[in-house]
Amino acid sequence: MKAAISSLISFRNFDLHEPSLSRSIFRQLPLLLPSKFPVVSTDAKANGANFTSLHQKFRFPSMKTSPIMASSFNPERATSPPAVPPPVPPVTKFKIGLCQLMATPDKQRNIEHARKAIEEAVEKGAKLVVLPEIWNVPYSQDTVSLYAEDIEAGGDASPSTAMLSEVSRRLKVTIVGGSIVERSGDKIYNTCCVFGTDGNMKAKHRKIHLFDIDIPGKITFIESKAIAAGQTPTVVDTEVGRIGIGICYDIRFPELAMIYAARGAHLICYPGAFNMTTGPLHWELLQRARAVDNLLYVATCSRARDVDDSYVAWGHSSLVGPFGEVLATTEHDEAIIISEIDYSLIELRRTNLPLLKQKRGDLYQLVDVQRLKSE
Amino acid sequence: MKAAISSLISFRNFDLHEPSLSRSIFRQLPLLLPSKFPVVSTDAKANGANFTSLHQKFRFPSMKTSPIMASSFNPERATSPPAVPPPVPPVTKFKIGLCQLMATPDKQRNIEHARKAIEEAVEKGAKLVVLPEIWNVPYSQDTVSLYAEDIEAGGDASPSTAMLSEVSRRLKVTIVGGSIVERSGDKIYNTCCVFGTDGNMKAKHRKIHLFDIDIPGKITFIESKAIAAGQTPTVVDTEVGRIGIGICYDIRFPELAMIYAARGAHLICYPGAFNMTTGPLHWELLQRARAVDNLLYVATCSRARDVDDSYVAWGHSSLVGPFGEVLATTEHDEAIIISEIDYSLIELRRTNLPLLKQKRGDLYQLVDVQRLKSE
Repeated sequence: MKAAISSLISFRNFDLHEPSLSRSIFRQLPLLLPSKFPVVSTDAKANGANFTSLHQKFRFPSMKTSPIMASSFNPERATSPPAVPPPVPPVTKFKIGLCQLMATPDKQRNIEHARKAIEEAVEKGAKLVVLPEIWNVPYSQDTVSLYAEDIEAGGDASPSTAMLSEVSRRLKVTIVGGSIVERSGDKIYNTCCVFGTDGNMKAKHRKIHLFDIDIPGKITFIESKAIAAGQTPTVVDTEVGRIGIGICYDIRFPELAMIYAARGAHLICYPGAFNMTTGPLHWELLQRARAVDNLLYVATCSRARDVDDSYVAWGHSSLVGPFGEVLATTEHDEAIIISEIDYSLIELRRTNLPLLKQKRGDLYQLVDVQRLKSE
Repeated sequence: MKAAISSLISFRNFDLHEPSLSRSIFRQLPLLLPSKFPVVSTDAKANGANFTSLHQKFRFPSMKTSPIMASSFNPERATSPPAVPPPVPPVTKFKIGLCQLMATPDKQRNIEHARKAIEEAVEKGAKLVVLPEIWNVPYSQDTVSLYAEDIEAGGDASPSTAMLSEVSRRLKVTIVGGSIVERSGDKIYNTCCVFGTDGNMKAKHRKIHLFDIDIPGKITFIESKAIAAGQTPTVVDTEVGRIGIGICYDIRFPELAMIYAARGAHLICYPGAFNMTTGPLHWELLQRARAVDNLLYVATCSRARDVDDSYVAWGHSSLVGPFGEVLATTEHDEAIIISEIDYSLIELRRTNLPLLKQKRGDLYQLVDVQRLKSE
């Protein structure tokens, strides 16, 4: 009951900012809003769980082996709505493949190149394959819109996602399809599509935080000149666990990773392409920080470095474990990293270091606006 | 007006959790709550600013040299209340001294030893000196209460803070006094006292997040058996800028650092003592992450390593700049690190990488509960 009151009032908090919403409208919200959490594609067959049932089963990590008692400082209030634990995943241990690829100006070649890379990763045992940000064309603010695909229309209008769908179905592999330039109406997005083992697109994440930075003499890039920002965080249930999606610059925002952790993600995948300035400064640091602060897996996949490109990528795709340990990484050339994920480590690390039980909900609270609205 | 409504409703959100607070009480809140932000000691002489005036002057980092426009996604809503920028500090460039010291069982010796270390740091130019966590006695759950001092009573009841007060006044230096074991009534705290150049105690931070961890065979420590948790985040205006204080395990919680950044801190100081397991895994990572995510300075000061101690400290005190760069560090022996802080870099880095303008207040919001209540 308390939780219900809290949700309602927090929700009103946000929407009173919108002049078009009056108090009377709040009473109609259950009708106006989708009844299910809108940004999660729950696959009942895959894990038999949705957020409602997970929420009912809510518990903190196992107390069996730990002498540590829960704190009395309302840790459950430190995230709003309260955090849900990761669901029992369809598989606990599996191999991930990170395909660090170069993008040439020949899009059709890039698509075939990526297809072969995915096939190779699957041959080496990968059940989940991740591609880089904008893996199918060179990434330039001036030209990206020329290469944009209409993902919703599909087929010939989106040869890149058609390939991803075909491979995922044929090889029964889950694919976090890096990102491609998407045209939707009169807008252009930087979009990651996730495909399940049946070849269906399970989720579509449009980059939320656009890469507008200005380090004079080093790197100035105003992505928002060409690209529109996405409007929803994305967590998707797959046959290899619950995965949060961010694209490159999204990794700079700890709030997004914390929201994903509170939604029960086992793994956050960030297709990316840091540059030669911010790459050595921050790429590994940010991955490790997101992993250890949230005690979950982080996987990144960068474009390979092309020194002739107008945007030179840092490379260094990596898999990071829930203690922030770099489990696998590479340099800047093309590479297929195969590494093992073991989700049982998440519960172990959360028992070792029970941060979720120790948060101070009496002092701070991170609100997940869309999840709050959907509950 | 919108902001006022938002604050009120967010506040009601929190306090409806408390059965003792009824709706009618909310109308009396301006009378019930302190009118000023309770956990900040604002020094009007030092910086001529308090939170109200800062809030009125609120602006994002300079747009002069940056081609980046503010986003339309309500970044100001990503923290509640909205973030305030760091005030103009009394000094922009100065030297910090980090005194990494060993604590023997002889408390009086430790106090004299620390006094000499501070004197040496000041001789070398330090305007701000930081001491380690529990620098005056060995840190054992079983014995700490024997060494507890009554800080509020002062004088002979707290020889450690008496020394800090004497040195800070005599040498006109600001001291973040590591932490000592404090007795207050029937409770024991792990407490950091901050002294101004006039010898007065400007702030007292009681460790908020207690170190209860359990990595079997490596490190198990249940600090909460002996210590009570503090109840307030601490940001203090000093003659060397606005400083947020955390003690050791407090650094694990990104929310606390984000709250401090939103309160306008230039620098977060974490006296600490990571151990031989979590030290190599996470000590530097966490410092760098807090710095780069919030684009401010982070300084840590650890106890030196004593392999005969029941708790063996990792050492590696460091100063980290607003891009997460390690500006100075050391190994595990006793050391006095002297390094330069330049607060003008904070604005530069926030112009390079305008994260604060790019947060998505439409998707997430971090609430600073006590600051919200005080406004």
